[in-house]
Amino acid sequence: MARAPLSPLAVSLGDPAGIGPEVIAKCWDHRDELRLPPFLAIGDGRSIAAVWDGPIEVVDDPAQADAAFDYALPLIQVPAAESDAPSRPSVAGAHCSLDSLELAVGLARSGSAAAVVTGPVSKEQLYAIGFQHPGQTEFVAERCGVASGNVVMMLAGPTLRTVPVTTHVRLREVPDRLTSALIESRGRAALRGLQRNFGIADPRLAVSGLNPHAGEGGELGQEEIELIEPAIAALAAEGWRVTGPHPADTMFHARARANYDAALCMYHDQALIPIKALHFEEAVNITLGLPIVRTAPDHGTAFDIAGQDRADARPMAAAIRMAAESAALRADSV
Amino acid sequence: MARAPLSPLAVSLGDPAGIGPEVIAKCWDHRDELRLPPFLAIGDGRSIAAVWDGPIEVVDDPAQADAAFDYALPLIQVPAAESDAPSRPSVAGAHCSLDSLELAVGLARSGSAAAVVTGPVSKEQLYAIGFQHPGQTEFVAERCGVASGNVVMMLAGPTLRTVPVTTHVRLREVPDRLTSALIESRGRAALRGLQRNFGIADPRLAVSGLNPHAGEGGELGQEEIELIEPAIAALAAEGWRVTGPHPADTMFHARARANYDAALCMYHDQALIPIKALHFEEAVNITLGLPIVRTAPDHGTAFDIAGQDRADARPMAAAIRMAAESAALRADSV
Repeated sequence: MARAPLSPLAVSLGDPAGIGPEVIAKCWDHRDELRLPPFLAIGDGRSIAAVWDGPIEVVDDPAQADAAFDYALPLIQVPAAESDAPSRPSVAGAHCSLDSLELAVGLARSGSAAAVVTGPVSKEQLYAIGFQHPGQTEFVAERCGVASGNVVMMLAGPTLRTVPVTTHVRLREVPDRLTSALIESRGRAALRGLQRNFGIADPRLAVSGLNPHAGEGGELGQEEIELIEPAIAALAAEGWRVTGPHPADTMFHARARANYDAALCMYHDQALIPIKALHFEEAVNITLGLPIVRTAPDHGTAFDIAGQDRADARPMAAAIRMAAESAALRADSV
Repeated sequence: MARAPLSPLAVSLGDPAGIGPEVIAKCWDHRDELRLPPFLAIGDGRSIAAVWDGPIEVVDDPAQADAAFDYALPLIQVPAAESDAPSRPSVAGAHCSLDSLELAVGLARSGSAAAVVTGPVSKEQLYAIGFQHPGQTEFVAERCGVASGNVVMMLAGPTLRTVPVTTHVRLREVPDRLTSALIESRGRAALRGLQRNFGIADPRLAVSGLNPHAGEGGELGQEEIELIEPAIAALAAEGWRVTGPHPADTMFHARARANYDAALCMYHDQALIPIKALHFEEAVNITLGLPIVRTAPDHGTAFDIAGQDRADARPMAAAIRMAAESAALRADSV
């Protein structure tokens, strides 16, 4: 039986004073050359109109988006209490960005949208209005009924995917935050995410070391022996294809990258330096472990350049494409 | 007055059982397409003959090398006590690699060679014969009468140069090894090295943070505020063009790299992940702070593939080219 066409992707605009509205509008403008499927913007239309003079079609129901997408950017209007100028963040804008995110997640949860793509928000502004989560990822997890410890951030580009075991942790505290159990659970989530979101039946995971030269057999640190090797052994015992610990500096060149589907890294910069060095314009943040597909461009609000027509829409386009591909894979596997 | 032509480059073979002999021979084979100036191999000719059937011209005096280079690989013979098979390291080979290194440095010190390029040695084998230095760099420094704390390793590729402040230090110990004085002195050495070895009159140095997002204003760590910012201020007060601390993950994409001539990084993998991700085949290790020019390909002995004609000669070629360019710059500035 042929499956029904996928509903549109729900794209929250993020902070109305950031570059979210601009890059989403640019994505619609260049939808053909960027090979983008129909998507539906969710946020305050005034923040788009402030930086773009293209056609916007306000819809009430996501089901109307596909038809509108040919001639206008479909939008579900989430009005802010006051309209922000680009690059001037406000409390009203923060509320609007949160309401938009919540609506987008709700549409995906209910099946009215195929996936969620989240525009960049200002954590500082969100904290100012009482937002309790470290970031959008944890908020989405909560709204999906998943404990935030069970979701995993993957950074994905055309030739590299990385998953950090620890994220926003001071470098000094990283070694003590690492446990075999944590490495193992992040590794398992990464492997399952490769199956579920990328359709890789028997995924290969390369695990980095923590220390220079992966500890050089214990000479340059014990964490590889005490923490990382046992986690690798445990995953391998479950039948997963896992290698490592690899010296982090020789894991990310082209020939090395061909040997794995994702790299599990021990800390933030170990995962983010290579992905951004290689794929700055196309790096997508995809959340693994959720019942819905959620992606985001791997950049911030960039308030400093908002409203100047300088923002690069390629990361948002990559996030939209990846969301569509993952959603299609999931629909196929139902 | 026209200056005399530069003497040849002295290239030590490194461990005779590693890939050094093979990649040096391949460099001579492809000297034209690799745009290589005359160089002189120093080591046991048998280790080259074991993996290559091209012409070798044994010379006594480096001055004979330029003429020989057209039709043969010039070699100063440093015989090992016994001849190793490729991929079978031995004590005799370790002695030979050390003697070759010492001779190469001596030729450069005396002006008989324009610069030294060092092939890969086995630290394990060298330690077994009583070698007391952490690596070749410190040995070269000592032979040049420079305290090893005053020389700095730079990794240089076509679009990125990085200098690690700390090198082979366990990640756990990195934060406590960092001091403002150390960051400042490494930064100054990097800046002077950019002038002296790369001919950049007014070099720009970008300094990384230690923590994710460069500490996010203190939220994710204090080292940026307490250690790195004062070092940057001190260098700036001397008139150097220094920026940072920059979030390490957004320092290494193409547009960011265009803003500086070298990146000063806080630890081994922060410096080596981006250079090897971007420039694995052309990354050169160049030692700054020496009275002579010394470069090396940024790879090891690779005993596992030695003797199989599989070694990539491009890193050695890049090291030879960079040594020649730096030596020419220094000669011009005399």
